[in-house]
Amino acid sequence: MKKQLRRDAETIIHRAIAEVKPDYAVEKVLKGRTFPGKVYLVAAGKAAWKMADTAARTMGSTLTAGVVVTKYGHVEHEIPGVTCYEGGHPVPDEQGVKGTQAALDLTENLQAEDTVLFLLSGGGSALFEKPLIPMEELKDITGQMLAAGCDIVEINTVRKRLSAVKGGKFAAWCAPARVISIVLSDVLGDPLDMIASGPTVPDRSDCARALDVIARYGLRISDRAKACLQTETPRALPESETQIIGSVRELCRAAADACQELGYMPVLLTDQLCCEAKDAGSFLSSILKTHATQGKKMAFLAGGETVVHLSGNGLGGRNQEMALSAAQGIAGLPNAAVICVGSDGTDGPTDAAGGYADGDTLASLAEKGLSYAAMIENHDAYHALEAVDGLIKTGPTGTNVNDIAVALIG
Amino acid sequence: MKKQLRRDAETIIHRAIAEVKPDYAVEKVLKGRTFPGKVYLVAAGKAAWKMADTAARTMGSTLTAGVVVTKYGHVEHEIPGVTCYEGGHPVPDEQGVKGTQAALDLTENLQAEDTVLFLLSGGGSALFEKPLIPMEELKDITGQMLAAGCDIVEINTVRKRLSAVKGGKFAAWCAPARVISIVLSDVLGDPLDMIASGPTVPDRSDCARALDVIARYGLRISDRAKACLQTETPRALPESETQIIGSVRELCRAAADACQELGYMPVLLTDQLCCEAKDAGSFLSSILKTHATQGKKMAFLAGGETVVHLSGNGLGGRNQEMALSAAQGIAGLPNAAVICVGSDGTDGPTDAAGGYADGDTLASLAEKGLSYAAMIENHDAYHALEAVDGLIKTGPTGTNVNDIAVALIG
Repeated sequence: MKKQLRRDAETIIHRAIAEVKPDYAVEKVLKGRTFPGKVYLVAAGKAAWKMADTAARTMGSTLTAGVVVTKYGHVEHEIPGVTCYEGGHPVPDEQGVKGTQAALDLTENLQAEDTVLFLLSGGGSALFEKPLIPMEELKDITGQMLAAGCDIVEINTVRKRLSAVKGGKFAAWCAPARVISIVLSDVLGDPLDMIASGPTVPDRSDCARALDVIARYGLRISDRAKACLQTETPRALPESETQIIGSVRELCRAAADACQELGYMPVLLTDQLCCEAKDAGSFLSSILKTHATQGKKMAFLAGGETVVHLSGNGLGGRNQEMALSAAQGIAGLPNAAVICVGSDGTDGPTDAAGGYADGDTLASLAEKGLSYAAMIENHDAYHALEAVDGLIKTGPTGTNVNDIAVALIG
Repeated sequence: MKKQLRRDAETIIHRAIAEVKPDYAVEKVLKGRTFPGKVYLVAAGKAAWKMADTAARTMGSTLTAGVVVTKYGHVEHEIPGVTCYEGGHPVPDEQGVKGTQAALDLTENLQAEDTVLFLLSGGGSALFEKPLIPMEELKDITGQMLAAGCDIVEINTVRKRLSAVKGGKFAAWCAPARVISIVLSDVLGDPLDMIASGPTVPDRSDCARALDVIARYGLRISDRAKACLQTETPRALPESETQIIGSVRELCRAAADACQELGYMPVLLTDQLCCEAKDAGSFLSSILKTHATQGKKMAFLAGGETVVHLSGNGLGGRNQEMALSAAQGIAGLPNAAVICVGSDGTDGPTDAAGGYADGDTLASLAEKGLSYAAMIENHDAYHALEAVDGLIKTGPTGTNVNDIAVALIG
């Protein structure tokens, strides 16, 4: 039973991730499509290289030229006709700005019949950036807003105005050319203007709101920054269209299909999970305890991105912690298991994508003389799961659409 | 829509609690039942008086005599033929021991044809107790175990042996009389030997285990206590039978029925919820966000007992905090609401049974100039919900089977 559960859990995860890999999805959108004028490709984010490589292969000579801005170490090889840049993430740096400038240069003075293919993925907010103020002041203002307790909407309202590309400004720059954005989303709920602060999406905020944030929280900003905040962002971008090709929603849907194929009745709990990882694991184990004795193969799915409030000096990631936390509630159950993974194949500062726990996990830890309570307390899920063969390692998957947890009753 | 949601939420809760009130359930078990010999009633716990009152009325002259041991302030009036005692809860005291002694005196030297009706409810562990060592040492040993990080199974393994009534010893004392236990459970998952440490249930632990706990954690105990730990508890109690008349499982089932009657498709998530209240609220709001746009009336049910790690000086209870926490995730949704209540009608040190939040809650708080973030941080759910008409007040319900949360999509 345990071996079968583990096999099924891994199969479900692998099939779900395969469905949201950008290769297939990008190809599907572009294949056979024709464009009237020249076609320029701009790809930004952690999956940018993979998306651009697929697009270049699909389009062949139809593609005029392109620029990729991705994270350090994410360029696998050169792409003909496309210049690749690597920059800082999650903290933006001058290399990222250099790549963004190259994208702006590429898309300057386009014609109405031209097309810009904008391939966007998670991490695009840091990687696709050209600040209108010195980078140092941008970091300082962001820091002030975080310290003052501004929410993400307030932060984006200000930051869109301090950038030459965010808040729809990149699409405005490309005008009169047409902009087709193809998006792999890692933002829960997929609000388009929140994904990388929406470089090609009409902005819904206004200057009054931005200035109000500055006043309300008493933020210190330069005159140059103030002038930026007084400039409105584009309200309408008629030549811009956006298509989401992958998100945690598709990831959950694909996982549900895989569950069904393996004989588990899938129950989608949510694709917008955002609570503490430890408590999400506890909640899932409570669900399993209640349903484990009903003699029915079931799979409860939760996609999203949990958080971990760190303390101690342990090693782990939110997915590993969630799985380890669930281990306590399901201890002793012969037919329950939880698997939690990051769809990009990484989880925290570790080489694992996530973790797996079943009814034996707690006993196995005790057998090895390890203290479950101490390791949970110390956020040391990696070493705990490593000791009981509970780490899930996929390697980089080439996609990035948040995390998924599957709680199985076999 | 909002008014309807609020009305439905309250209706569901009221109907669910009505189904697990001890009155009806006790009457159903006892009505028309005959007993060969004399019948003695012993009731312990927070619902003891209500259960005994119903039993006495149902049985009339069939009842020989009885003893009630309940919490201070819980005796509403005298019951003919039954002596009522009030004692300390959650910390046991000498008054509780006096009541327990009266129950032991009542059930001494019974005959094989006699019956003891043992009515047990939450709080029974503190209220039904006669320590075999001085109360002071019992408190000291319990304190040492808590400080050492012992789990509840380890604590009970030791405490059952330091008590004259726990771990099946009360049923053994009543032998050869038959013991019929009627239980209103507030222990998640209903393991019979955990409810009030199982006075009438065969014990599953042994002396070796108890002595191992003492040695492993280096606990300091007297010779008298050590002698107790070397005495085995009853392994078999053939004359003892137990019936659970109410628990959080029945509460959830009744709530699901009420949801169905009101046109909501019920989805039982769990009846064993035990994570942090704030994160349980966030998890529920994530579920609502995912399903709110499907055009289907749904109700997600979660029974159990969450926890709150207190900080700050706010006022509230775990149910109020869970509802207030959910308010953030569902803010702005026109058709989502969460109601969370304690089935006993009390939640934390407040006069409310729990809380209600919907898509307007966050905006209403802001309108009143109240900071949601500060009030959540300060665990001040009572004052937050009070300001926006989000408190649910039922008064004492006379039952006690944990909490229930209902997340509605209208």
